[in-house]
Amino acid sequence: MRKILSLLILLSIGQSVIAQKANTKDAAMLEAIYKESLLNGNSYDWLDHLSNKIGGRLSGSTNAAKAVKYTKAELDKLGLDKVWLQPVMVPKWVRGLKEYSFMETGPGITSIMNVCALGGSVATSNAGLKANVVEVTTLEELAVLGRENIEGKIVFFNRPMQADLILTFQAYGGCVDQRYSGAKEAAKYGAVGIVVRSMNLRADDFPHTGAMSYGDLAISKRIPACAISTNDANKLSNTLKLIPDLNFYFKQNCKIFPDVQSFNVIGEITGSTYPDQYMIVGGHLDSWDLGDGSHDDGAGVVQSMDVLRLLKKTGYTPKHSIRVVLFMNEENGLRGGNEYAMQANLKGENHVFALESDSGGFTPRGFSFDCDAANFAQIQSWETLFKPYLIHYFEKGGSGADIGPLKKEGMVLAGLRPDSQRYFDYHHAENDTFDAVNKRELELGAATMTSLIYLMDTYGVKNRVTKIKK
Amino acid sequence: MRKILSLLILLSIGQSVIAQKANTKDAAMLEAIYKESLLNGNSYDWLDHLSNKIGGRLSGSTNAAKAVKYTKAELDKLGLDKVWLQPVMVPKWVRGLKEYSFMETGPGITSIMNVCALGGSVATSNAGLKANVVEVTTLEELAVLGRENIEGKIVFFNRPMQADLILTFQAYGGCVDQRYSGAKEAAKYGAVGIVVRSMNLRADDFPHTGAMSYGDLAISKRIPACAISTNDANKLSNTLKLIPDLNFYFKQNCKIFPDVQSFNVIGEITGSTYPDQYMIVGGHLDSWDLGDGSHDDGAGVVQSMDVLRLLKKTGYTPKHSIRVVLFMNEENGLRGGNEYAMQANLKGENHVFALESDSGGFTPRGFSFDCDAANFAQIQSWETLFKPYLIHYFEKGGSGADIGPLKKEGMVLAGLRPDSQRYFDYHHAENDTFDAVNKRELELGAATMTSLIYLMDTYGVKNRVTKIKK
Repeated sequence: MRKILSLLILLSIGQSVIAQKANTKDAAMLEAIYKESLLNGNSYDWLDHLSNKIGGRLSGSTNAAKAVKYTKAELDKLGLDKVWLQPVMVPKWVRGLKEYSFMETGPGITSIMNVCALGGSVATSNAGLKANVVEVTTLEELAVLGRENIEGKIVFFNRPMQADLILTFQAYGGCVDQRYSGAKEAAKYGAVGIVVRSMNLRADDFPHTGAMSYGDLAISKRIPACAISTNDANKLSNTLKLIPDLNFYFKQNCKIFPDVQSFNVIGEITGSTYPDQYMIVGGHLDSWDLGDGSHDDGAGVVQSMDVLRLLKKTGYTPKHSIRVVLFMNEENGLRGGNEYAMQANLKGENHVFALESDSGGFTPRGFSFDCDAANFAQIQSWETLFKPYLIHYFEKGGSGADIGPLKKEGMVLAGLRPDSQRYFDYHHAENDTFDAVNKRELELGAATMTSLIYLMDTYGVKNRVTKIKK
Repeated sequence: MRKILSLLILLSIGQSVIAQKANTKDAAMLEAIYKESLLNGNSYDWLDHLSNKIGGRLSGSTNAAKAVKYTKAELDKLGLDKVWLQPVMVPKWVRGLKEYSFMETGPGITSIMNVCALGGSVATSNAGLKANVVEVTTLEELAVLGRENIEGKIVFFNRPMQADLILTFQAYGGCVDQRYSGAKEAAKYGAVGIVVRSMNLRADDFPHTGAMSYGDLAISKRIPACAISTNDANKLSNTLKLIPDLNFYFKQNCKIFPDVQSFNVIGEITGSTYPDQYMIVGGHLDSWDLGDGSHDDGAGVVQSMDVLRLLKKTGYTPKHSIRVVLFMNEENGLRGGNEYAMQANLKGENHVFALESDSGGFTPRGFSFDCDAANFAQIQSWETLFKPYLIHYFEKGGSGADIGPLKKEGMVLAGLRPDSQRYFDYHHAENDTFDAVNKRELELGAATMTSLIYLMDTYGVKNRVTKIKK
């Protein structure tokens, strides 16, 4: 008994010595990564080009094509083992002329309203659309109101984001049904158009666009849908209480074209030990068209690119094949994410880990993980390594839209979780521009992502499926 | 033995039930505090007034007097037990006409430079000051260079903030000797003026002012000192490498007037159980004059005011006397902080806890504590209560300049620690304005401070001195 005990103690001391050595080595590696990112990071310069030289990168646009070309050329310079374009057909929706809108409270008495077409919406007629307004805060209210109260009117969805939620993405999740499904549902009751309160926690004048869907609604039944700024939503709501029969007018000129050819941009450092096991890091290269898409998701793109540059720069040789994937068309189709997963499956590529950054370029707080208990326990054992960098958020949860289609048993998916308090001030709006991104915050995010990739590569994924069934 | 064990088990179960109940009650209280701050907080409106209706509040200025009057009036509305002004004499330094500066690389070949006088500096002559430049990165280099290389020249202190430090206040601490003592030291070697690289981690065009001191240098020996923007510091440094004998010119018109009467603004909720034990929360009401002092320290002022409002609003009756103290003259004298401590001492007021917010209105991450081990252990036991609000930083360290003079054995001092990555983009510069503060981030800070005050009041300070020696 005593012998066994002694042996156990020795073993545990031995293990703790090994663990301590690993810990010291890992701590030094993380230090090198953060130092390089903060002193010589490339993410900010790349973002400057994407945002200021190219601009908004809506799927199917010339800018999106320029962004593909630019990021491919930049990855080519990094000395990776492979860089290539993966073809994918994407939808092409075009906003056209700037929208115009007003509220009419009496004959000739109008106030200009700040609106923008929702992505995927049909246009109004050339003359625009003018109608009475019925305000609701949920999709369910439509059934309560019924056709008699909705037919011929514009439905105004005005449920605000819940300000007392700490995680603003939860508040977004609690509202976005109005934007995504509002038109489809309102059309069923004879509405002629919809106006949706912008998904924004701040009171300001920017309308925020975003994806909407008509589902299987016949083309002839589709009604135009726009977003209205939070200030004007409040103004409209308050005025409706005084003048219920006011008219709302909006004109938008958006149009859907046939799908066009585009690409995911991919770079790879081939693994030294497990070349056929893939760990990927990515963001989406497309953006909405109103701003220049600096936070959503220029930040994720340039951070992901810098992950591979930082790995090389710090002299690290990955065991697994590490890929950066810049996905096309996250915003209005997810075609890039779906295509990447489909091709991976067709080629029998075994993806064991995927990390996405698509929550803005703000100070990183940690990650959200979609994985099993064994992997999560391993990840939690790394928390102390991240503490000097103020990275503290390690929670189970979602990862990222683009990497979602890769999900399979035994795989680890993760999403970078930056501070989210300001994200919806900019999300999908005209003010999502380069000046809203802080260089250090962006670089800290790139370093945090690189550190996680390093640790995942070094210690591997638990319970991973080592052979993939074709 | 078994009986004792059973008793111990029962006792420990009993204690854990009590702890759990306390925990549930505390969790509910924190939830109420955060909810009220995010849904009905007053901090942002107060800051709007301080920043946009009053503006920069340099000690001794009319704006500072207006800020005293305004915050006193607002505290009067909160239904506190006492609100009063505590007189304090403050220095009055006035910038005068905007500074003017250029670099002259050849006869008539000049480039405008962005500079501002350091707080407390003397003026140049009316004609301005033009001289050759000697660049250094440390105060120690002056001795190495010696009088023969410095006399008659302008010393240019150009050590940048260290970008790879995660805590930006550490980087500030590593540089600020150049600003504070540069003129005093350079004058000893016959320098005619100094130019200091702005304490800013970003490359931009804003010069950042801040306090400097001539120490006991005779008035006749005092030389003018200005700060230069980081962009222009780089430009000057690069040009000096090519043209070592270039001339630098600056003209500033600042002046010191006799001390003037000002006030700390104080409000109190008198304690129900320990009325003669004081817990205070505060920020400083004065600011530099270039911006409107929104982050430094309008944010701390309005958050501190909201702590008392939130305590009342959530129906909490404090056991200790809770005071909000809006200190005057932190920036260039600390007269308010010193006066408050001196009066507390004279009156035998027993201060057991003090919390300051003076690190900007950014997303709060936690607190830094100056206290003994017993108190720190108690504070750490509250960490889980803060987790839902993403508050994770509980470290030993400094607290705040204004509350420092109160420090004594057995007391707990704390400083709010918001995310610091952007702080020095704005600190003491023209762009420290209202639009740089996010409403939610400010409100989260107010709620976090209120939560700590609530917990300290509920559980008390360990090892506190209950009687104070007069």
